[in-house]
Amino acid sequence: MIDNQLIIIKIGGNVVDNPSVLSKVLDDFAKIPQRKILVHGGGKIADVLLKKLNIEPQKIEGRRITDEDTLDVVTMVYAGLINKKIVAQLQARACNAMGLTGADLNAILAHKRTKGNIDYGFAGDIDAVNTEGVAALLDIAQTLVFAPITHDKNGQLLNTNADTIASTLAVSLSSKFKTTLKYVFEKKGVLSDVNDEDSVISNINFDDFQTGKSDGTFFEGMIPKLDNAFDAMKNGVQSVVICGIEGINEEIGTTLRLS
Amino acid sequence: MIDNQLIIIKIGGNVVDNPSVLSKVLDDFAKIPQRKILVHGGGKIADVLLKKLNIEPQKIEGRRITDEDTLDVVTMVYAGLINKKIVAQLQARACNAMGLTGADLNAILAHKRTKGNIDYGFAGDIDAVNTEGVAALLDIAQTLVFAPITHDKNGQLLNTNADTIASTLAVSLSSKFKTTLKYVFEKKGVLSDVNDEDSVISNINFDDFQTGKSDGTFFEGMIPKLDNAFDAMKNGVQSVVICGIEGINEEIGTTLRLS
Repeated sequence: MIDNQLIIIKIGGNVVDNPSVLSKVLDDFAKIPQRKILVHGGGKIADVLLKKLNIEPQKIEGRRITDEDTLDVVTMVYAGLINKKIVAQLQARACNAMGLTGADLNAILAHKRTKGNIDYGFAGDIDAVNTEGVAALLDIAQTLVFAPITHDKNGQLLNTNADTIASTLAVSLSSKFKTTLKYVFEKKGVLSDVNDEDSVISNINFDDFQTGKSDGTFFEGMIPKLDNAFDAMKNGVQSVVICGIEGINEEIGTTLRLS
Repeated sequence: MIDNQLIIIKIGGNVVDNPSVLSKVLDDFAKIPQRKILVHGGGKIADVLLKKLNIEPQKIEGRRITDEDTLDVVTMVYAGLINKKIVAQLQARACNAMGLTGADLNAILAHKRTKGNIDYGFAGDIDAVNTEGVAALLDIAQTLVFAPITHDKNGQLLNTNADTIASTLAVSLSSKFKTTLKYVFEKKGVLSDVNDEDSVISNINFDDFQTGKSDGTFFEGMIPKLDNAFDAMKNGVQSVVICGIEGINEEIGTTLRLS
């Protein structure tokens, strides 16, 4: 184990939904020699199960909400099926992983999102990370796998955005470890031309980002991701990388730095 | 924390299926001051979900087998829904629990059961416990909650009997801790008269058991449970208690001792 370094990798539904892509990702992830955390999203499995169970997606004012039945399904799929299959597959790669949710060891405490009159259902906004506890787990397991479920310490599980879990863990754990956060998504990195898959920008610093935001360099959908990434770095995360699956343990993709 | 003591409680489907009974059990379990492990069975939730999904229970020669679809459902229900709801409810009781399966941290290694020509599907027989790892987790979390799922270290999850998980954990961890194993079931203890709920036998030692086995003292269905319990004690477990839900942290029920 390389002392004092932590790599946090977030994979989205596009990886989770595709067994051969997931297998390649887990091959690469298992080889990372440092302490590491994999945060996985949900993919389409929960949607398929909701449909099979005739649970209609609930929407209020066009916004999808997590009602009680949906929460049960996402808890089953994210914390049960996906998380444990990933853990078993990492074990097969000699990577002694441990899977968990934010409820386990009170790792991630959240509250039910409320905003004015809008009911978001059982969606959680994060309040705190049990940094000491997660760091202690990393000492034992070296590899953790987080499902995007948190809790409110009153017995309620909450569906929570996986990107936010990854960045919040990164910020909290940067008080203990030199932390790198990698967002693995469907492009090879941040593109200068959204229609050219190979137009990956290798490095973006905060000044580039501020300039690029105003002159339209970045595809609009990337702006919130980049905003969050720079926020994470301002709060202690050493570097953030936005990359495709080939960037898990190679320096391919877009590296963000404060200066 | 009371040094060097460990209490392992196994609760069955009758507890898991009944929210008010489960709530009472978790109230009592949360108050246990020692290191503790809760092992839960599955209950009827998986059966209900299998039925809703039109997955027919597969039987070979009258024996139910765990096929791939069934394994996915029990993994979702046991490791996802039930395990995480129990953990969240323990957190609400100021009990900093962590939930896991045998795949996590390679806690319980098993192999797919094979016996002659009978295919049991994805049912696991236990080979080994990661005693050092589980003991280290107990130092951090003090409270663990095990779902009855193991793995084979080749990436395969396996459905595994919760009674066996409880007794195997108890035997392995008795090398580290003075370990008590409690089986919480639907009776108040081992009955001398199967038709009289109040005929609980307070103490049974190994000689009593040998005598009682031959003279018909014990209800036939209890014999395998008692056999397993005495085996566990011969392999290091300090005491085994068979009790109802009122016996979790009171001395009510049947206490087994070697001598």
